Amino acid sequence: MRFEDTICACATAPGAGAIAVIRVSGPRALEFADKLVRLRHGRLSDYEGYRVAFGEVEGLDQVLVTVFRAPHSYTGEDGVEISCHASSFVVSELLRRLMEMGCRMAEPGEFTRRAFLNGKMDLAQAEAVADLIASDSQAAHRLALSQLKGGYSEEFRRLRAQLVELASLVELELDFSEEEVEFADRSRLSGLLADCRGRVDALKASYRVGNAVKNGVPVAIVGAPNSGKSTLLNALLGEDRAIVSDIPGTTRDTVEETMVLDGVRYRFIDTAGLRDSSDTVERLGIGRSLEKLRSAAIVICLLDACDSPSSREAVLRRVMDEVSEDQKVIVALNKCDLAAGSDEPVCDSAGFAHQTVAISALRGTGLDALRSAIASCGFGLSSGEGAIVTSARHYQALCDASEDLSRASDALSRNLPGDLLAEDLRAAISSLGSIFGEITTDELLGEIFGRFCIGK
Amino acid sequence: MRFEDTICACATAPGAGAIAVIRVSGPRALEFADKLVRLRHGRLSDYEGYRVAFGEVEGLDQVLVTVFRAPHSYTGEDGVEISCHASSFVVSELLRRLMEMGCRMAEPGEFTRRAFLNGKMDLAQAEAVADLIASDSQAAHRLALSQLKGGYSEEFRRLRAQLVELASLVELELDFSEEEVEFADRSRLSGLLADCRGRVDALKASYRVGNAVKNGVPVAIVGAPNSGKSTLLNALLGEDRAIVSDIPGTTRDTVEETMVLDGVRYRFIDTAGLRDSSDTVERLGIGRSLEKLRSAAIVICLLDACDSPSSREAVLRRVMDEVSEDQKVIVALNKCDLAAGSDEPVCDSAGFAHQTVAISALRGTGLDALRSAIASCGFGLSSGEGAIVTSARHYQALCDASEDLSRASDALSRNLPGDLLAEDLRAAISSLGSIFGEITTDELLGEIFGRFCIGK
Repeated sequence: MRFEDTICACATAPGAGAIAVIRVSGPRALEFADKLVRLRHGRLSDYEGYRVAFGEVEGLDQVLVTVFRAPHSYTGEDGVEISCHASSFVVSELLRRLMEMGCRMAEPGEFTRRAFLNGKMDLAQAEAVADLIASDSQAAHRLALSQLKGGYSEEFRRLRAQLVELASLVELELDFSEEEVEFADRSRLSGLLADCRGRVDALKASYRVGNAVKNGVPVAIVGAPNSGKSTLLNALLGEDRAIVSDIPGTTRDTVEETMVLDGVRYRFIDTAGLRDSSDTVERLGIGRSLEKLRSAAIVICLLDACDSPSSREAVLRRVMDEVSEDQKVIVALNKCDLAAGSDEPVCDSAGFAHQTVAISALRGTGLDALRSAIASCGFGLSSGEGAIVTSARHYQALCDASEDLSRASDALSRNLPGDLLAEDLRAAISSLGSIFGEITTDELLGEIFGRFCIGK
Repeated sequence: MRFEDTICACATAPGAGAIAVIRVSGPRALEFADKLVRLRHGRLSDYEGYRVAFGEVEGLDQVLVTVFRAPHSYTGEDGVEISCHASSFVVSELLRRLMEMGCRMAEPGEFTRRAFLNGKMDLAQAEAVADLIASDSQAAHRLALSQLKGGYSEEFRRLRAQLVELASLVELELDFSEEEVEFADRSRLSGLLADCRGRVDALKASYRVGNAVKNGVPVAIVGAPNSGKSTLLNALLGEDRAIVSDIPGTTRDTVEETMVLDGVRYRFIDTAGLRDSSDTVERLGIGRSLEKLRSAAIVICLLDACDSPSSREAVLRRVMDEVSEDQKVIVALNKCDLAAGSDEPVCDSAGFAHQTVAISALRGTGLDALRSAIASCGFGLSSGEGAIVTSARHYQALCDASEDLSRASDALSRNLPGDLLAEDLRAAISSLGSIFGEITTDELLGEIFGRFCIGK
C-alpha cells in the first residue's frame, strides 16, 4: 500500500520539557525536511536511514534530524524525526512551515494506522501500541508489551489455523457430498471443535482479569455506616483522601482512588454505609454503593468488631446477596483494637468461606495482611502464561466466535448438513481473524485509531 | 573539563504523547546503553556518533537509540538518547534501571551546565536555551534564538575588548608613572570611555523592552468605575474572562490575561475602577489598581464618552499623576455608540498628547484601531538591530558596569591617579565578562541552571 500524502505531528507530550520531536512520514518527507532544515554539509535526502544530522531551521531553531528510509521505519514509509527545543512557539511554527509546503497534520493514530496498512504490524499489535503508552502499572504494561511483540496474535493465529483445518475437512466432505461419502470422521471433528471451543472460552474468560488489569482492578469497600470505610481508604492510600468523621453517613459520593500493589493497579472505591435511611441524598448514595459493589472485582466487606455478631452477620448477608460468584470477597474486621476477643473467626456460623482479616484502620494494624489478601485475588502478574485479553473489541470478537462454534457444535451433534456447519466455522474464523486484522473495514480502523493520540 | 559521573533524565514533557526521550550523558553512557538495550546485531558502543539503532529493552519496550560521541554532542560528552513509548511506567522503569547500573538522575539544567563547562557554549547562550524553551511568542523566541546563536554574546565581547584596550592604555601609563610620562592621551581615553558608557547604557535601556517581550508586555486597563474595562478585556480576548455587570465596582481582584498581537505577548490587566470608595474591599482593589498602573509598560486609560468632559479629565489627570515618562498611555474613549459628538479629540485642553482611540467595547467597534495603537508602542519585532537584554542577571551586570564606568569617567575628568581609573575599568570588564561566563562561581551556576527544567 502506498499513501500519496505526507503527514506530520508532534510525537512528544505538550508542555514543559527540554526537547520535542516532530514526526514526518510519507513520500515527500525527505523533500520537505530538505526545505525546512539547512545542514552544514549536504542534504538530508542524501542521507542513509538511521542517520542523524545537526541543522538549522532558518530563524527558528537548531535541530537534530533522524532520517528513516522505507521500508525500515515505523510506518514503513520514508520519514524524518525532527528533535527541536520544546517551546510551544517552535513546535507550532515547525508544523506550520511543514503544512505550508504541503504536509498534512496527522490524524490521531495515523502513523500506526499506516504501519498496520503497510504490513509492519498486525491490528492487535497496533492496538497494543496505544495500550503500552497508556500503561501505568507493571501488569498493564506487561500485557501490552506481550501483545505488541506479537505473542498474543500468535495464539489467535494458531487457533484460527486450527479452525481453518477443521473447515477444510468439512468442505472436502461437501465437495464429495453428491457421492454420499463421509470423509471427515465426525467424532474426530467433534473433538477438534471441542478443543477450539475450550480455548476460545478460556480466552474469553481471561478478559475479566485483562480488563481489570488494564483499567485498574475495582475494589469496593462496603459495610455498615461508621464501620470505618473512609478511614480504611485513607489508611491504605496513606493520605487524607476521603472525608472522615464519627457521624455515621458522612460519605455520600463514592470516592475513588487508585494504588499500585505488587505491580497491579487497584481502584479503591469508598462507598456510603449500607443502612436503611430516610435521608434522600443518603439513600441515593446507598443505591450507588450497591451498584459499585456489584461491578467490583474485589469486595472488601468491612465489619465493625464493636457491633454485635448478629448485626455483623446481617451486613455480611446483605453484601453476599449482591455479589456474584466471580467476585472475590474479603471480610475485614475493623476496630480490633477496641473489641475484646475480636480475633475469633468471623461469620463461620453463616457458612461463608472467605478470607478474613482483623485490622484497625485507625491504628494501621493488619493493613499488610489486608494488602496480601488483595494481592492474592488472582490479578497479580504471575497469573498464567497464555494470552490475556484486555481489549473490549477482542472480547466481543471472542464472544461472536464462541457463539458460532457453539452453533457448529450443535450442528455436528445433531448431524445437520455439512454446509451449515461450514458456514458457522467460516463465521468463527472471520471473527478470530478480525482480532489481528485479517479482514478490516475503514469504519473499524477509524474507530480503533481514532482513540490514539496524535503523533502516534 | 571531565565529569566522572554519568547522568540521565527524561528530556521530553511528561504526559500523553507518542514517544518520550531519555537522555544519558557522561563517560559510561555507552556502557550503560549496552547493558540496557539489546540490538539485533552488534553493540551500541561500537556505533559511530550520529547513528541510530533499533533495539529492545528486556521485558520493557522496543526503542530507538541515537549514539553521540564526545565532543560532538550537546554536552560535549559521550551520550545516548533513548526514544521509547511515552508510558509513565516505561519511562520510570528505564530511569530506574539506568540508576541501578550507576547512572545518576540529572539535576535541573545539568546537561546544559555541562555543555557550558565543556566549552560547547558560553553562559549567555546556555541561558538562552531555557529562554528558547519557555518562549511562547515570536518576539520572545526571536530574542532567545539570537542569544543562543551567539550574536548577543558577540556584542558584549566586543564591548569588553574595547574596555580591555582602554585599561591597557591606562596600565601602560602606570608602568611608567615613576618617569612621569603620560603615554595615554587623556582626551582620547575620555572619548573611548564615553563611547563604552554610551553602549552600556543603550544595552541597559534595552532591558525595558527585552524584559517586557520575554515576560509579556504588561498593559493595564484603568478608568472610572463602570467605564467598561472588563467589557473591553473580554472584547479584546474574544471570550468571557472577567465578570461584567452594570454595577459599578464589579471588578475587585485584578484580572489578568495574555494575548499575542503581531508576535508579541501582551499581559492585559483589568483593574478595579478608580473612585473614592468607602467599601474596604473595593478600596484595597483600587490600591492594587494603582500599583498595576505604575508597573505597566502600556496604560489604557478608558474614559466613558457618556461622562461629562470635566469628570473624564479628572480621571485622566489622576492616571497621568501616576505614570512615569517611559510608560505609554493610550486614551480609549468608550461607549462612542451611545454619546453624540464623541469622536471629537479628547483632553486636548489638558495638554496631553497621547494616542486617542474611539471605541465601543460592547459593540466591538474601534478595537482594531486600539490594537494598532498597542502594537505601535515600540514592543514590536522590528525594534532595533542590536542586542536586547532580556535577563535580569545581565541587566544587573550592566548596571554594575555602568556605575564602574561612571566612576572611571569621573576619575578621568578630575585627573585622579591612573591606578584608581584602572581599578574601575577592571571592575567594569569583570561585570561584562560575567554575562557570557568569563568568570563564574559555583553559586552563580547553581542559580542559573537551577531554573532549568530537568532533562535540559
